[in-house]
Amino acid sequence: MSNPGIRVSILTISDRSFRGEREDLSGPALVKAIQQLGWNVVQTGLVPDEKEMISNWLIQACDSGKTDLVLTTGGTGFAPRDVTPEATRAILEREAPGIAEAMRQKSLQITPHAMLSRAIAGIRKRTLIINLPGSPKAAVENLQTVAAVIPHAVELLQESPDAEKGHTLSSS
Amino acid sequence: MSNPGIRVSILTISDRSFRGEREDLSGPALVKAIQQLGWNVVQTGLVPDEKEMISNWLIQACDSGKTDLVLTTGGTGFAPRDVTPEATRAILEREAPGIAEAMRQKSLQITPHAMLSRAIAGIRKRTLIINLPGSPKAAVENLQTVAAVIPHAVELLQESPDAEKGHTLSSS
Amino acid sequence: MSNPGIRVSILTISDRSFRGEREDLSGPALVKAIQQLGWNVVQTGLVPDEKEMISNWLIQACDSGKTDLVLTTGGTGFAPRDVTPEATRAILEREAPGIAEAMRQKSLQITPHAMLSRAIAGIRKRTLIINLPGSPKAAVENLQTVAAVIPHAVELLQESPDAEKGHTLSSS
Repeated sequence: MSNPGIRVSILTISDRSFRGEREDLSGPALVKAIQQLGWNVVQTGLVPDEKEMISNWLIQACDSGKTDLVLTTGGTGFAPRDVTPEATRAILEREAPGIAEAMRQKSLQITPHAMLSRAIAGIRKRTLIINLPGSPKAAVENLQTVAAVIPHAVELLQESPDAEKGHTLSSS
Repeated sequence: MSNPGIRVSILTISDRSFRGEREDLSGPALVKAIQQLGWNVVQTGLVPDEKEMISNWLIQACDSGKTDLVLTTGGTGFAPRDVTPEATRAILEREAPGIAEAMRQKSLQITPHAMLSRAIAGIRKRTLIINLPGSPKAAVENLQTVAAVIPHAVELLQESPDAEKGHTLSSS
Repeated sequence: MSNPGIRVSILTISDRSFRGEREDLSGPALVKAIQQLGWNVVQTGLVPDEKEMISNWLIQACDSGKTDLVLTTGGTGFAPRDVTPEATRAILEREAPGIAEAMRQKSLQITPHAMLSRAIAGIRKRTLIINLPGSPKAAVENLQTVAAVIPHAVELLQESPDAEKGHTLSSS
């Protein structure tokens, strides 16, 4: 493993924070959590709950070649404006359903409301995108559920397509 | 929480019941379970395992503005005529995978056959649709797994799209 | 239950094995596991991690009418060439998400890396397709998680579309 510094972009999705009516607490909470993991935050962003704006931000982050992992926070619930999963799916190349399932399974041990999370995860080019909930506490908890496997996921994404796929993993 | 009377539509999907060859037991079992929850059944229906007929019924129920929750029973298995998940997905606007995952996870504790349920859940306009199994017992058990979170889900669906999204939920 | 001999096709997906640079251990491990279950291996195959080649192999296996179950091994991870789930989804008629969820849930008890499996399962015509991991050990473990429900799934897939759907299952 040679990922001393996984490059992370963090996108907050919130109408109220975008309009300046509410302080964005989730974004900074994730920045702090990422730094505690020893990874590098290379970019943060804030967009309203608009599908196209979310998708465009994700495309630019993934296609820049400068980000290994994009974390989104917000917009994964049932309110009419919650469209983060749809904006994410629209630009993914390959879904990774096990990541979202594992986060919900773990969260269900804390609260039954975890089943209302519509979060998804997946891959675009060489970047992993993970939707996290909108509350700072739940966002960080969900990140911690998956943090242990992210270095390996990022390492696999960096493989040359022409490389010999020689590893055999117990889980992939 | 001000949903004393969540408005529920119940759709039974069964070739045999539609042809009058078998009594529909699942629909009435769900009606009773809904009433015990203190919610209101506003409509019941019975259609054969025909994708287009299922989809059309769901569209009308959701787009009427008179239903907060649609429960389907039947057609979620492996038989060639089981197409309820496909008929549902075709008319959903936003999927809610955590609901189906939670139902299967709970059912797996009762029987390994739970993994054969192909049920899905999701949102169209302001209505939540949940596929339930075809047996009365399993349908009611699955409903009970998710009943606790439905009032909050319905409340979120009723939010004005123009409203300030001010709540921060631990799980959404 | 009258499935003394479930007919199984096994497809290994691996660039290196296809080029003869690495022995295919997963395919033979699955053949042995199937025989121990008392089922019949009717066909094995080996293709590189090429989406179209995988899809074409699956189509031929399912549409031949000679296979009840197709197991794939390999290509479900995060490397750029891992496209087995996408190649599978492209030719499925009906997804069976509960099977993949159950395999991951069980594997998570062994290793957190299980959440990186992107495996899916589903139905084309009368054949069930299940993606298994690339390592022999994990492939056999995942098969064992779902083996108990496969005879019933296969039996349901064989039902005549015109038959009266008279069974009521506790789980479907």
